[in-house]
Amino acid sequence: MKAFNDLADFSNEEIAAFIALANRLDAHPEPEALRGKVLSLLFLSPSLRTLASFQAAMTRLGGGSFVISPDMSIHGLETRPGIVMDGAAAEHIREAVPVIASYGDAIGIRAFAERKSLEHDMAEVEFNAMLDLIDTPYINMESAMGHPCQNLADWKTLDDLDIPANGGKFVLSWAYHPKALPLAVPTSTLYMAAKRGMDVTVLRPEGFQLPTPLMRKAIFAAEENGGSVRETDDRKEAMEGAHVIYAKSWSSTAHYGDKLGDHDLRENLIDWCVDEPWFESARDDCRFMHCLPVRRGVVVSEPVLDGPRSVVIPEARNRMLAQMAVLHQMLGGS
Amino acid sequence: MKAFNDLADFSNEEIAAFIALANRLDAHPEPEALRGKVLSLLFLSPSLRTLASFQAAMTRLGGGSFVISPDMSIHGLETRPGIVMDGAAAEHIREAVPVIASYGDAIGIRAFAERKSLEHDMAEVEFNAMLDLIDTPYINMESAMGHPCQNLADWKTLDDLDIPANGGKFVLSWAYHPKALPLAVPTSTLYMAAKRGMDVTVLRPEGFQLPTPLMRKAIFAAEENGGSVRETDDRKEAMEGAHVIYAKSWSSTAHYGDKLGDHDLRENLIDWCVDEPWFESARDDCRFMHCLPVRRGVVVSEPVLDGPRSVVIPEARNRMLAQMAVLHQMLGGS
Amino acid sequence: MKAFNDLADFSNEEIAAFIALANRLDAHPEPEALRGKVLSLLFLSPSLRTLASFQAAMTRLGGGSFVISPDMSIHGLETRPGIVMDGAAAEHIREAVPVIASYGDAIGIRAFAERKSLEHDMAEVEFNAMLDLIDTPYINMESAMGHPCQNLADWKTLDDLDIPANGGKFVLSWAYHPKALPLAVPTSTLYMAAKRGMDVTVLRPEGFQLPTPLMRKAIFAAEENGGSVRETDDRKEAMEGAHVIYAKSWSSTAHYGDKLGDHDLRENLIDWCVDEPWFESARDDCRFMHCLPVRRGVVVSEPVLDGPRSVVIPEARNRMLAQMAVLHQMLGGS
Repeated sequence: MKAFNDLADFSNEEIAAFIALANRLDAHPEPEALRGKVLSLLFLSPSLRTLASFQAAMTRLGGGSFVISPDMSIHGLETRPGIVMDGAAAEHIREAVPVIASYGDAIGIRAFAERKSLEHDMAEVEFNAMLDLIDTPYINMESAMGHPCQNLADWKTLDDLDIPANGGKFVLSWAYHPKALPLAVPTSTLYMAAKRGMDVTVLRPEGFQLPTPLMRKAIFAAEENGGSVRETDDRKEAMEGAHVIYAKSWSSTAHYGDKLGDHDLRENLIDWCVDEPWFESARDDCRFMHCLPVRRGVVVSEPVLDGPRSVVIPEARNRMLAQMAVLHQMLGGS
Repeated sequence: MKAFNDLADFSNEEIAAFIALANRLDAHPEPEALRGKVLSLLFLSPSLRTLASFQAAMTRLGGGSFVISPDMSIHGLETRPGIVMDGAAAEHIREAVPVIASYGDAIGIRAFAERKSLEHDMAEVEFNAMLDLIDTPYINMESAMGHPCQNLADWKTLDDLDIPANGGKFVLSWAYHPKALPLAVPTSTLYMAAKRGMDVTVLRPEGFQLPTPLMRKAIFAAEENGGSVRETDDRKEAMEGAHVIYAKSWSSTAHYGDKLGDHDLRENLIDWCVDEPWFESARDDCRFMHCLPVRRGVVVSEPVLDGPRSVVIPEARNRMLAQMAVLHQMLGGS
Repeated sequence: MKAFNDLADFSNEEIAAFIALANRLDAHPEPEALRGKVLSLLFLSPSLRTLASFQAAMTRLGGGSFVISPDMSIHGLETRPGIVMDGAAAEHIREAVPVIASYGDAIGIRAFAERKSLEHDMAEVEFNAMLDLIDTPYINMESAMGHPCQNLADWKTLDDLDIPANGGKFVLSWAYHPKALPLAVPTSTLYMAAKRGMDVTVLRPEGFQLPTPLMRKAIFAAEENGGSVRETDDRKEAMEGAHVIYAKSWSSTAHYGDKLGDHDLRENLIDWCVDEPWFESARDDCRFMHCLPVRRGVVVSEPVLDGPRSVVIPEARNRMLAQMAVLHQMLGGS
């Protein structure tokens, strides 16, 4: 495996194999599997779970990792192409990325979304510019529109909870947050649930529709796998019979890259905080998922987050297990 | 072993076993003992020795670790309970701590002392709030009133120096420092020396008495183990026949949480800098101990710190060895 | 081996053995060689390649490392001798360095050049002050005038490219940079190429002569090994028949420690940016080397840096391999 970039690159059988391997490694550790192997971890935006879970994953498999972030170079890393570097930054990613990659058997890259133009971000301009510089196996640790490690962990979490694939009702809900956040998690989570064959409802206010090409990609995956995708701004309708609600805030796509426009729309939506009344029409055992970090009392109420519906902690632990499976296959343990 | 939180949780025989194991691991390395095991390290306040010594300890035993500090999350970690998180911090310790713990086989936690109310800090409110969130085995890497890793390392250092348990004379002395520092090291060091059965003198100026309940805890441990505890502000009397002086600055307990009151008391005490004349009435070979970091020329004079009395470097190395013994027992190497 | 501090401490046969070992470890990994061994990494100035390549090297050999930088201590590390520490810094390197060293089987130290007095920096006052504090085996990860890991990697790179030792023509060229940079890389690179027996030309503008004692050291090494050393400010003459140009900016030695004087000299030299026309009189396959980080369009033009002459990425990868050889010999793998 040369890349772990998008669940779309894998068949449902391959995904099932990743999850089976993750479960096996959880039950039967293999501390010799990746002896002496090195994973380079490059973070161009901050991280807690990804940082910790990848380091832990490599240690559990007998290898190791190192972490590089821009603040480790002198005055940061320059990313702009074709620039005369007479400013602060002393190093360009054109050198930093291939050098860092050359020290590892694989590299994990967390890029960032520029969030000026939706087309630009959907084209993954920054992330692909980095991939062009390397030929090492790589893992997408979050790009402008992708977060496959989160997606694989979430799929495993749904399996762990025995939430059915076909017939399972998955609500992806926008939630309030004071800032305009990237689209990586919502768009790739939508695809994940659709590819799993679930009946997916995107619940979001006006102005927060997910980008049409990514909706289409999800609809196609759902159709192929016996599921469905629809969207609504009607909370009650969306939650009807739901097995799970996956909450996440994201930027307005109607005002993408327009901070003020996004803010004006957003400030009237503070009631989009997932709370117990949302679950009235859902299944009694409807679960609450979130990729974390989550703002308490803003994105979700404390009673829901601390209550029995919430699976955010085992969901986060599945990040490590899912990544162990990916690393095991990528670095030759399997 | 589910917790390493306080020497009081262990019998003197169990402590002797830790130290014997530390010595064995120093002489006969076991780089396979903790193959593939992961220690999560969470630092809510800064660290150098603890950070380095735990990482080195896990590597020497064949496992690994990862480090998380609040600055790794976006805008820090929120710690206040019941808060609506509409400010800077994007993550609460209620999620961060159990997630970080879930990636490790054990977790080391360095909390902080709020230092507003002595009762609050003696109740270990912050540290216990974090323990409530996890069921992983844990190590106290310093809480408001505890520092058991330092205590075990110091006990080993006393053993290494052949300083007698019963009959050994241990002076715990307050020293000047421009800032009001936590009570964790002095209170837990007092207990350590008392539990070792030594004759302990707490030498401190007026206003810097250690909290009565912790004095009582130490007196009881001393009585049980053939030692004694007394306190004085008379330097000459305290140092009479001393085997060792353990210097440390700490906050005024008479003005706890009152920065100004502490400062007014403290500013007249700059002569509490351990210097050669202090040792006049001590044993010729009286040793100088300190947990580090130490301010030269402020807490202790350069000639004492750089001279033959000082054992601060081997004392700091014993941190690593003591922690190796704890990790070996906790994570199944033993 | 107790120290890896200067190529001058090793015979050419010993250097060849390091490189042969580096090649062997690249082709035939030894993930058990340094099981449970710890390398302490102390960075008193920032780093990216050195940080990453040493961590990766230890992991590949089955050991591990930990990283300490001054910002990990409270308010930084004090370095001034004999000071009363009543300011911000809470710890002195006199404690920090031996403690950090005591946790490792070896220590790598990156010091800094004070860059006030050339004599002071040539005497390696800061670096030697740290060495005086330890008796652990150590690796110079860059001092005021030395960078032996870079030198060994560069020697290997020249071997990899089949650039002849005797008869090989090596141009060490000054290049423009907005800041006055240390002399460690140019002076130690000069020595490396001379000791390899190459015909070395130092190409630099007036005011940027390398220090006379280090020129003499290089001339002596060249004479011993069948090479030569000369210097010039004539670009065309210097590049005549060159196999390789090694570009690097450095401080004016005529105005050492005089920021303004250096700046006045430097500001007229922005045409010292290595560009394709420089190569007119060189061999067709003349290579471009640089230790990185490099400022694009300032030190070197984009077409040269991105073109077939540039070997900066494999050169940087050789850092890891060269260091693996050093660590393997130092820590008992060999």
